Amino acid sequence: MAARIAVDAMGGDNAPGVVIEGALRVASGDLQLLLFGPLRVLQEEMARHAPKGHPYIALINAPQVIGMGDSPVAAVRAKPYSSMRIGLAYLRDGKADAFVSAGNTGALAAASLFVLGRLLGVSRPSIPTYYPSINGVCLVLDVGSNMDSKPEHLLQFGQMGTAYARRVLDIEQPRVGLLSVGEEPAKGNELVRAANKLFSAATSINFVGNIEGGDILHHAADVVVCDGFVGNVILKLTESVMTALPVMVGQEVAAQGLPPSVADSFKCIVGGLKQRFNPETYGGCAPLLGVNGTVIVLHGSSGARAFEKAIPLAVRIASADVSAAIRVLALGTA
Amino acid sequence: MAARIAVDAMGGDNAPGVVIEGALRVASGDLQLLLFGPLRVLQEEMARHAPKGHPYIALINAPQVIGMGDSPVAAVRAKPYSSMRIGLAYLRDGKADAFVSAGNTGALAAASLFVLGRLLGVSRPSIPTYYPSINGVCLVLDVGSNMDSKPEHLLQFGQMGTAYARRVLDIEQPRVGLLSVGEEPAKGNELVRAANKLFSAATSINFVGNIEGGDILHHAADVVVCDGFVGNVILKLTESVMTALPVMVGQEVAAQGLPPSVADSFKCIVGGLKQRFNPETYGGCAPLLGVNGTVIVLHGSSGARAFEKAIPLAVRIASADVSAAIRVLALGTA
Repeated sequence: MAARIAVDAMGGDNAPGVVIEGALRVASGDLQLLLFGPLRVLQEEMARHAPKGHPYIALINAPQVIGMGDSPVAAVRAKPYSSMRIGLAYLRDGKADAFVSAGNTGALAAASLFVLGRLLGVSRPSIPTYYPSINGVCLVLDVGSNMDSKPEHLLQFGQMGTAYARRVLDIEQPRVGLLSVGEEPAKGNELVRAANKLFSAATSINFVGNIEGGDILHHAADVVVCDGFVGNVILKLTESVMTALPVMVGQEVAAQGLPPSVADSFKCIVGGLKQRFNPETYGGCAPLLGVNGTVIVLHGSSGARAFEKAIPLAVRIASADVSAAIRVLALGTA
Repeated sequence: MAARIAVDAMGGDNAPGVVIEGALRVASGDLQLLLFGPLRVLQEEMARHAPKGHPYIALINAPQVIGMGDSPVAAVRAKPYSSMRIGLAYLRDGKADAFVSAGNTGALAAASLFVLGRLLGVSRPSIPTYYPSINGVCLVLDVGSNMDSKPEHLLQFGQMGTAYARRVLDIEQPRVGLLSVGEEPAKGNELVRAANKLFSAATSINFVGNIEGGDILHHAADVVVCDGFVGNVILKLTESVMTALPVMVGQEVAAQGLPPSVADSFKCIVGGLKQRFNPETYGGCAPLLGVNGTVIVLHGSSGARAFEKAIPLAVRIASADVSAAIRVLALGTA
C-alpha cells in the first residue's frame, strides 16, 4: 500500500520553496504527499517548479501560518486553520501516515500534543538527537523540549530511546546510560539519584548504569538519558567544538611553527569531522517521540535535500511503528 | 615577610613522595613550608630526598590520614589528628597563609568548612575550573562541589568567580555569563530563570546575560556560572574531546584516503590542544573559594611538578586576598 505523508509546506525559514522542491524529488506512486498551506501560495510555488503539477502531490488548503517566532501555545490555539493543525488532523484521522515539518519546533510539539495527544504512559514527549561518537552514533534525549524533568520522565526518555533504537536503528538491546557525575548510583543531583533507582528497577530498558560527560563521545551507551536543560547545553557545546576547533588548530600551527600545509590538510579532516556533527548528516530531522502518531521535526534552516531525506525516514518510522513499541515499554507490559 | 604555606603531605595518589619532592624544589627563605603527616613517615621520606633536611621545611606530626576513598564528612569527623585537620588549624590560627592538598577533594571541602568556616555571605564554597577557549581561558564554576543549587548559590558563584578573576587573573571587570539554553531571560530551567533575575539585579557582578553551551569555547564570558551537576558534565565532556579527537581524526584520515603523514603532523597539533585541556597547564590546581582562608586543591594524581606550581600560586592567592574581595561582593557592599 502506498505511504501517504503529510508535509507542512509553510514550516521553516525557506518555506514553501524548498519544501515543494524536496517533495517533487521523492513523490511517487508508493510515496504520496499531501502538502498543507494557503492554497494560492502553494499553487504559485508549485507552478514555478512543476507547471503541470505532480500526480502524487496533493495541495491542501490551510490558510493560516504559524511563524517561526510565534509563541508556541498561543499560536497553536489561535490558528486552527494553520498548516500544522490541519496536517496533524489528517494524521490523527488516518488520512496520512506521518507529518513532517520544519516549522517552529515548540509550536509543532504543542500542536502535536493538542491534536494527537500523548501516548498512554508517556508524560512528556521528547525529540532524540543523534550524537556522534568514536564508534557510530548514539541517541541523546531529551535535548531541550523538557526543562525540569521528574525521575519518571527520564525513565520514559529511556524507554522512548530504546523503542526508537530498536525499531529504527536496528539495535536489539540498546544500552541505556543515565548521564551523571559519577558511576556510583549515589552520585548526581536529586533528580538523577532518584532516576537511578527507577532505571535500576525497570525491566523495560537495558540499563547500563550512570555514565559521565566524558563517556558520550566514547559511546558508553546507545541511548543517553538526561533532562532537557543538560541535554541542550551539551549538544550546543559539542557542536561548538567544530567551530572552535579550526581556530584552535590554526593557533597551534602558528605556535608550534608547523608548515601551513599542515593547516591545509587539516581542513579536510575538520570538514569530515564537521559532517559528523552536522544534523543533516543524520537526515537533519528527528521524530517527536511520545505522541500518538509519527511526527518528524526538521531544523528550521532545512533545505530541499533535508526534506528529500526526512520524508522517506518518516515512512520508515511510521511503518516500524515506533509508537506501538513505546506504548509497550512505557506501560510496562514488555 | 616570608610566606608560610601549610602542605598536606599525605594527600593524593602519590603522597608523600611527590609532595616532599615538590616542596624541596620551592622552599626558600621567602617561602617557608610546613608539611603535615605522621612524623616518622615524613622523616623517612625526607631522608630519602634530602638526608640533611631543609632549613625552610618543617615537618609537623599529624598521625591520622584521610584516604582518597574515605567518606568525606565521616572521615573529617573521625580523624581530628589528620594532616588535613591539623594543617587547616594552622591556617585558621594564623600560623600559615594557605593550605595546599591533593587529598580527597570532598574531605578537603568538608574539613575546610569545619575548621575554617564559610565566608560571611557565602552559603556554598566552590572550586572554579579553568576552561580553555579560542581566546584564553575562562573560569567555570561550579563544576561538581554543589549539586542542586539554589539561585542565590549561583549568584555567589558569580561573585566568587568575579573576585578571583579580578584579583588573580587581573581582569578588572570580568564578564559573568549564566549558562542556559538560550539568551532570553525566560529561557532555561526553573533554577536558571530565577537566577537570571538575581543576576540582572546584582550590582556586584558584570552580568552579560545568559550564554549557551556553544558560547563557552568561544569565550562569551570570563566567568561562566552553572550548577555543579551541569558544570561537571560539561567539563568531563570537554576533556573527552581530547581523547576522542585523535581516534576520530584517524578515522577521517583513513576514510578520506589522506596520506598517513597528515595523521602524524596532526599528532603534534592534538598534543598542543591536549595541553590546553590539561588541568596541569593551569597549575593543576584551583582554590576552594568561599571558605575563611586560602585553600588550594590539587588533582589526586598530581606529581611533584604540580606541587611546585601550586605552592607559589597559593602564595599569590593568599596575598591577593581573594577572600576579602569575595566578602565585599557577597555582602553587597561593593
